[in-house]
Amino acid sequence: MSFIKVDPQSDFSFENLPYGVFSLDQNGPRHIGVAIGDNVLDLSKIKHLFTGKLMQHQQHVLEKATLNDFMALSHEHWKEARQTIQKLLSADCSTLKDDDKLRAEVFVPMSKVFMHLPAQIGDYTDFYSSLDHATNVGTMFRGKDNALMPNWKHIPVGYHGRASSVVVSGTAIHRPNGQTRPSEDEPPKFGPCRLLDFELEMAFFVGGGNQMGQPIPIEKAHEHIFGMVLMNDWSARDIQKWEYVPLGPFLAKNFGTSISPWVVPMEALMPFAVDNYTQVPKPFPYLQHDDKYTFDIQLEVSIQPDGASQSSPLCHSNFRHMYWTMKQQLAHHSVTGCNMRPGDLLASGTISGPEETSYGSMLELSWRGSKTLELKNNTGETRKFIQDGDNVIIKGFCQGNGSRVGFGLCEGKILPAHKM
Amino acid sequence: MSFIKVDPQSDFSFENLPYGVFSLDQNGPRHIGVAIGDNVLDLSKIKHLFTGKLMQHQQHVLEKATLNDFMALSHEHWKEARQTIQKLLSADCSTLKDDDKLRAEVFVPMSKVFMHLPAQIGDYTDFYSSLDHATNVGTMFRGKDNALMPNWKHIPVGYHGRASSVVVSGTAIHRPNGQTRPSEDEPPKFGPCRLLDFELEMAFFVGGGNQMGQPIPIEKAHEHIFGMVLMNDWSARDIQKWEYVPLGPFLAKNFGTSISPWVVPMEALMPFAVDNYTQVPKPFPYLQHDDKYTFDIQLEVSIQPDGASQSSPLCHSNFRHMYWTMKQQLAHHSVTGCNMRPGDLLASGTISGPEETSYGSMLELSWRGSKTLELKNNTGETRKFIQDGDNVIIKGFCQGNGSRVGFGLCEGKILPAHKM
Repeated sequence: MSFIKVDPQSDFSFENLPYGVFSLDQNGPRHIGVAIGDNVLDLSKIKHLFTGKLMQHQQHVLEKATLNDFMALSHEHWKEARQTIQKLLSADCSTLKDDDKLRAEVFVPMSKVFMHLPAQIGDYTDFYSSLDHATNVGTMFRGKDNALMPNWKHIPVGYHGRASSVVVSGTAIHRPNGQTRPSEDEPPKFGPCRLLDFELEMAFFVGGGNQMGQPIPIEKAHEHIFGMVLMNDWSARDIQKWEYVPLGPFLAKNFGTSISPWVVPMEALMPFAVDNYTQVPKPFPYLQHDDKYTFDIQLEVSIQPDGASQSSPLCHSNFRHMYWTMKQQLAHHSVTGCNMRPGDLLASGTISGPEETSYGSMLELSWRGSKTLELKNNTGETRKFIQDGDNVIIKGFCQGNGSRVGFGLCEGKILPAHKM
Repeated sequence: MSFIKVDPQSDFSFENLPYGVFSLDQNGPRHIGVAIGDNVLDLSKIKHLFTGKLMQHQQHVLEKATLNDFMALSHEHWKEARQTIQKLLSADCSTLKDDDKLRAEVFVPMSKVFMHLPAQIGDYTDFYSSLDHATNVGTMFRGKDNALMPNWKHIPVGYHGRASSVVVSGTAIHRPNGQTRPSEDEPPKFGPCRLLDFELEMAFFVGGGNQMGQPIPIEKAHEHIFGMVLMNDWSARDIQKWEYVPLGPFLAKNFGTSISPWVVPMEALMPFAVDNYTQVPKPFPYLQHDDKYTFDIQLEVSIQPDGASQSSPLCHSNFRHMYWTMKQQLAHHSVTGCNMRPGDLLASGTISGPEETSYGSMLELSWRGSKTLELKNNTGETRKFIQDGDNVIIKGFCQGNGSRVGFGLCEGKILPAHKM
């Protein structure tokens, strides 16, 4: 128990303690903080209290403007730092609890902070690891019998994404302009994307890293997974359809990718580990692990049109639907010797479940635009894809006994396309 | 004319003056330098001599360990800096020429320096902009009639690559392990890549940059192109074939990408601009420009097997064969509003010409392994793809009147696969 009171509905319980980067002014100095309830604990102000045998030599990483240097330490460092924070926040530790002056300095109300990207992202990779999503999309474009590509159950399919345009929740995104070919009988067209979509995803930050040429074996993968965030992989479906052969999605994805600002450590998620998806055929040994490494994380996407007083849920999914685990993704990514760096971001791909209400994109929810979704905000508004002014909001949390380990919000509003 | 004597065969004439990052010890401090003949001029030591009206306020960028901050300045800054360097090196300027002490401090023999990546590469993108290459590969895999995808002549097709594994020339590369499916009648296999290839490419560094949501118009593209390097986009053809549907190349490319260390400024290349490829159909207005922006750069790939006393040329190509220009690539990349950052690297894709001897990859030279290349080193050795111990060497230069504007070497040796 902490001396800080936390609402049972809060994402940021004592059991969570996610890391983020905040500032008090939009352009002011950035600090590393930990969320607890409605407060942010400023780690830069208490770095001298990290006196464990590992962190006492690394206190300086806590006064940086990103989490990269902290992520670059070992799994054992993260564990010790978390124990220190738990102790400092616990009801039976007087260091903070009984020092009013120090408390006033180190705690900031969450309502007063501006959040930033938690790390400088060297490389961003997006996987495609939900079987339901891959099956849905494949069925739409190639029919039910050829829905899954032959490689899909052998390799965690993924592609390199654009790191520069990964932005923190709350950043508005312009609808992209681009080329599309609405009809195969006519030449392509240029203009604003007409089939703008979200993708409900989660992502993890790499910690530690590997030298180029030295793969991360799956037995060690957990030690290189720092923590998780929510992600919206904004997608321009019409641009994607025309551009993606043969080298994959490019402009359809690079206009913006939103992530939630608080990185939930794997330590906080381990109590919510559930059985992995049963994989048939059995993957190659370099991808095999027996321990549970998928998680019961409840996910929701809602939409708040411009001027609407409240948001309307579009779908409910769960991270447990993932076919490939994060360990498998990381072992696969580095099996060639590809060097992973602290702060690299690896995303799940759209997380769809088996029910229609659990599909993680408008492409699937409107089944390629053939169905209309009525918004649940009593205005009669409908959607097939995302419109200008829509704010798309992703939430996610693990439900514990009387407390939650949650991720906060990953939201982003769509602005009109740039006039060309 | 410079007071520094330069061999007419040297890549680094007075007309060139490329920028690079060097150190005197492998792990020693890094400095920005300019190559001239067999020398490197250490800019960190003469930054106070940049007294032009723009650079006098930005001298600090010349003492950084990468070129990013210099690249972040404007096209006008780069122009002025180049004029200053030209003046300092010219035969009629006494500042360096007549100051023996200063000269001894600021010039380092090229044979004594270690070269590093010229910039921290935020994002790396690879295009696919040679018509001959795209046609060759398409013909192999889909037959002559369907060689080009319908989008190819409308958009400069490209994909996001892996930035972490872009390395400087001279860095050895491990043959990657990975999944392949040699026969469609059998399950996939795991092990070392058997069809390892080079790709003869060139790449440019982005300078300046754009805010997210604000495209770089093609009229301004030149101002955001800092300079060019040679590139070898190492490719694992068998891994690529199995993994690439539907999201493009991933592990087949991320084990290593080599670039030459000296960045040749666009100012040095402009005298070698030649007519652009005639584009039919005419591209959309956002991709149209009339000025010449392809370049007569002679390119050669050679191979030096382990223990061989000399290298054997494999192919000769030319950058002028590119169908899409760098301006078009940059305007396309950012048309969605994707933000480009100083130090981003955009590559051409394999540069093949129309003749069989100008094909820029073993895939094409051996026509998918159906032909055997005899090495021209009088040993009777042959190749279809790259073997362990092979050093692959790319050279490139523009031939002027009695002097060259060249790129130096982009080389890399293949080491055996990591034992799994």
